Amino acid sequence: MNRSELIEQIRAKQSFLCVGLDTDLTKIPKHLLDLEDPIFEFNKAIIDATKDLCVAYKPNIAFYECYGPKGWESLKKTIDYIPSNILTIADAKRGDIGNTSTYYAQTFFEYLNCDAVTVAPYMGEDSVRPFLAFPHKWTIVLALTSNQGAHDFQMTLDSNGEALYKKVLRKTMSWGNSENTMFVVGATRAEGIAEVRSLVPDHFFLVPGVGAQGGSLQDVAHYGWNDDCGLLVNSSRGIIYAGNELDFAAKARLEAQKIQLEMQAILVEKHF
Amino acid sequence: MNRSELIEQIRAKQSFLCVGLDTDLTKIPKHLLDLEDPIFEFNKAIIDATKDLCVAYKPNIAFYECYGPKGWESLKKTIDYIPSNILTIADAKRGDIGNTSTYYAQTFFEYLNCDAVTVAPYMGEDSVRPFLAFPHKWTIVLALTSNQGAHDFQMTLDSNGEALYKKVLRKTMSWGNSENTMFVVGATRAEGIAEVRSLVPDHFFLVPGVGAQGGSLQDVAHYGWNDDCGLLVNSSRGIIYAGNELDFAAKARLEAQKIQLEMQAILVEKHF
Repeated sequence: MNRSELIEQIRAKQSFLCVGLDTDLTKIPKHLLDLEDPIFEFNKAIIDATKDLCVAYKPNIAFYECYGPKGWESLKKTIDYIPSNILTIADAKRGDIGNTSTYYAQTFFEYLNCDAVTVAPYMGEDSVRPFLAFPHKWTIVLALTSNQGAHDFQMTLDSNGEALYKKVLRKTMSWGNSENTMFVVGATRAEGIAEVRSLVPDHFFLVPGVGAQGGSLQDVAHYGWNDDCGLLVNSSRGIIYAGNELDFAAKARLEAQKIQLEMQAILVEKHF
Repeated sequence: MNRSELIEQIRAKQSFLCVGLDTDLTKIPKHLLDLEDPIFEFNKAIIDATKDLCVAYKPNIAFYECYGPKGWESLKKTIDYIPSNILTIADAKRGDIGNTSTYYAQTFFEYLNCDAVTVAPYMGEDSVRPFLAFPHKWTIVLALTSNQGAHDFQMTLDSNGEALYKKVLRKTMSWGNSENTMFVVGATRAEGIAEVRSLVPDHFFLVPGVGAQGGSLQDVAHYGWNDDCGLLVNSSRGIIYAGNELDFAAKARLEAQKIQLEMQAILVEKHF
């Protein structure tokens, strides 16, 4: 899915919601556990219940690979099940030297046929570029994350006073462009989003941390907005674990709808 | 495998060699491709041919997961096949917020039952600690890598003149200890190894970049040695792709033996 198609979906659905599929066997409704593939059945129900309300799904790869081959099968079936007009993001946070990154990119872009993958920048240019080499795919680079540990390294100021996350943004922008690169920018730091937007006017941001992690959607939209919306705001647990009984999918839909309506109000206000 | 068992293996085998299992279907001998699981058959032959010469095997996870469930099966069979007195390192470079890192740790420490996993530090303390919470397992944190891209961020000096990789070492050392933490320190920068050793006297280093990437084993031993050896030096392609015909395993053994003999000379000189 390219940038203009993504923007078109945001307009059509009046939503910039990404639903995180952090599907955990210990948290999904008990009645699913007797089925042959509970993880896929859960995801299928969540997708059916939310696909008109969101523009992206983001399976968190850790939750699948911990079950080995069976988990990878659930993941593949999930990606295949997502309608093609919805962006699929493999939240994998991979990154390694050249030919290894190429294999990771093949895993997510070819084997799973996802539209996007999240990438960790610590190893630098030759760990990120192999992902960018895949046409019509998105590389989503970790910049400023929403967790406490973001303070440990990402905010370190260099001898010129530039924070590491800003250096990551500046360098990565020169390796790709706003048609193939997005950035992870955590919602728990509204002022951080504003700073990133001032440095990165055109790119889309994938914004975790709204809801369960405490970030505000209003702040994210206020500080992160650009002319093309430029935002994908993720919610995982708040939506997918809204219920834990037979009606879990209906409850997930209600939560997704709450967020979508809040997004719609923002989009209307922005005349988008 | 704990630290004293690892040291004992280094003494017994007179080797601190780690063999990297970057097993690539496009590079392994053609006659294996007709077998049901060529990747496992290749690894099995390499392990049979080198297990008395090395103290660790390091499968590079990208090379397995790009084949989906089948690749994970080959990986699991490979780990299960490695004798228990040899350290198994999942070269996965994972790292995410708390509960996601716990799932990654479960994947490698429980599902695959590896002894060690490589971890990327960009997201900070709460992305690394979940790995350290697993008893009798090793977390190998990326510090100074051997690739060109290491210059992009790892060597950035902060306002106190401390390079990012040194900050990663300093902080990570305080989260774990030399019984559960190692560091990736690239062999392509001998002076870098010396600096890291001066900051980190006790920990083991996993050193890639000897051979194909141009680092010298003599330099690594000269600059990185500590009283317990403190080094695992990895070679992947130089060993496993030494041959490409029916005798590929014998050729791999010859290459591993060359390195082991060079290591033995170092160990003898150090009276180890």
